[in-house]
Amino acid sequence: MIIAVDAVGGDHFPENPIAGAIEALAEDKNLKVLLVGPEEMIKTELEKYNYDKDRLLIQDAPQIITMDDSPAAAVKGKPQSSIAIGIAAHKQNKCDAFVSAGNTGALLAASIFILGKLPGVQRPTIAATYPTIKGFRLLMDAGANLELKPEMYVQFAQMGTIYAKEILEVSEPKVGLLNVGEEPEKGADIHREAFTLLSALPNFEGNIEGGDILPATVDVFLSDGFTGNIVLKLGESFPEALQYLVGKTMKESGLEESTQKMVAGILQKSLRTFNYEHVGGVPFMGVNGISMVGHGGSSPLAIKNLILNAARCVELKINDKIVASLQ
Amino acid sequence: MIIAVDAVGGDHFPENPIAGAIEALAEDKNLKVLLVGPEEMIKTELEKYNYDKDRLLIQDAPQIITMDDSPAAAVKGKPQSSIAIGIAAHKQNKCDAFVSAGNTGALLAASIFILGKLPGVQRPTIAATYPTIKGFRLLMDAGANLELKPEMYVQFAQMGTIYAKEILEVSEPKVGLLNVGEEPEKGADIHREAFTLLSALPNFEGNIEGGDILPATVDVFLSDGFTGNIVLKLGESFPEALQYLVGKTMKESGLEESTQKMVAGILQKSLRTFNYEHVGGVPFMGVNGISMVGHGGSSPLAIKNLILNAARCVELKINDKIVASLQ
Repeated sequence: MIIAVDAVGGDHFPENPIAGAIEALAEDKNLKVLLVGPEEMIKTELEKYNYDKDRLLIQDAPQIITMDDSPAAAVKGKPQSSIAIGIAAHKQNKCDAFVSAGNTGALLAASIFILGKLPGVQRPTIAATYPTIKGFRLLMDAGANLELKPEMYVQFAQMGTIYAKEILEVSEPKVGLLNVGEEPEKGADIHREAFTLLSALPNFEGNIEGGDILPATVDVFLSDGFTGNIVLKLGESFPEALQYLVGKTMKESGLEESTQKMVAGILQKSLRTFNYEHVGGVPFMGVNGISMVGHGGSSPLAIKNLILNAARCVELKINDKIVASLQ
Repeated sequence: MIIAVDAVGGDHFPENPIAGAIEALAEDKNLKVLLVGPEEMIKTELEKYNYDKDRLLIQDAPQIITMDDSPAAAVKGKPQSSIAIGIAAHKQNKCDAFVSAGNTGALLAASIFILGKLPGVQRPTIAATYPTIKGFRLLMDAGANLELKPEMYVQFAQMGTIYAKEILEVSEPKVGLLNVGEEPEKGADIHREAFTLLSALPNFEGNIEGGDILPATVDVFLSDGFTGNIVLKLGESFPEALQYLVGKTMKESGLEESTQKMVAGILQKSLRTFNYEHVGGVPFMGVNGISMVGHGGSSPLAIKNLILNAARCVELKINDKIVASLQ
């Protein structure tokens, strides 16, 4: 098993991708990592570490796609980038998956363009793992497709069900359609049409509302990528807002320093479920390969989990199961 | 000043609307309240209280629009409902505003149908007060218009600016367009077109993302009603989810009962800003009158604040200011 890692993806490269790769190698002895990026930069950074040289390979890719590059232009204009070369290596079976904390749009574009779609898939999607009181659940689409066709909701539901079951280990995943009310007639035409088509799925529970996400009344939250992206980023912002509010309350109450620390510790522990580092990243579902993207600010821990998550997708043959489910 | 109150609106009628009305009368001695609903039911409930009878009037309205009634059918099919009669009384200048914790859709439909639109307004909107680390800010549309035209964003921005300044007391309100990224070209066609039109407003700060809401990087968050409604309900669900997570963490840590209570108290105080009771409700902006809706679960405190908020809208001549701003 070889997982290719974008050595120049995210806000902290090459430090974090390389540190995360080395942590992943230490954790899973069956794993090999292929670092993709400017060879000299990678070699210089690797000098900091002791690691199993037989399990860490390097693929030179001199160009760097930045977080600000427009996706289409980046993929076309930088054919020697880590993303283009890494995805191509995956296409040529030189590795089993490609992961990056870099430019999501560019990675999605390259994945669709180079790897192509799985048989039967209309449109690949980004499925985000969303923190709930029951643990991580799936929100999809999280930003890949701003507008959907009704039948795309159904495919997303089918792909999400597989992922929730296999990777999130939810035994019988339930699916809900994010809407402005529970009744079937709620929403715009697109939502009513999607509701009708989704009703053919045995695990479709109907419409859900914004207030159903955190209590996880279902396990797969279906949405267009516009609303999904806003819901995703709003969720990511809870912990910081909350820590600010609690800190302010404690200061104003004149609590002792030690008590303040204790409360902050409880809060941090409680919000652990909101920490994306533990899931590492999210897959592009529906592409003919395993391509995953992590948060731009990914820590070494997040990168490690991104790599291990990709390895699990390979091991569990997620894509074979998706293809079977869509037939 | 007479504020009409729907005595049979919300999940807890007539108890909560009437209790809230009496609290409002106690707080503002210049206020009169007109309770609208089935006369006998109101009179029976009023027997529980001591109050200034000169300042509490009753308008009989024998029909009740339930929370489940479809808006259009309710307004047409129940012409003797508290909502229809209350809004009509406002139209006839028998009161200065109408407030209800009842069926939002029915109240919006009745408000538009009976009161009409303010001069120059394309479409009235629901502006929700959204909790942020800086206090309440405005999210609009919060569910009245699922799909918008580009020019509607501009009017919402103008109306929201007035409300944020006058009622939320933000000295120089800034406006942002909720989108999937900050760059002007982000989003679908509708968002790019809205961005272009909004750029003519002096207080438009550009696109904002889901993560900009809680830190309140701007004061008026513009959105279509579909995304807005989901964002609103997601926000309302934070406190409960959080209290659950913190409670669970504390139990698992085996903290002493007294410490658990102390932490729960700090949390509750910190989340005070998320408590809709303190704003009471939200106005339908753009209708030719003052019509406000509260949460279905409104407590007496929430109803009281809903009434006082409506009174402030009247006093501050919000609608005159909106008309002037749209010219």
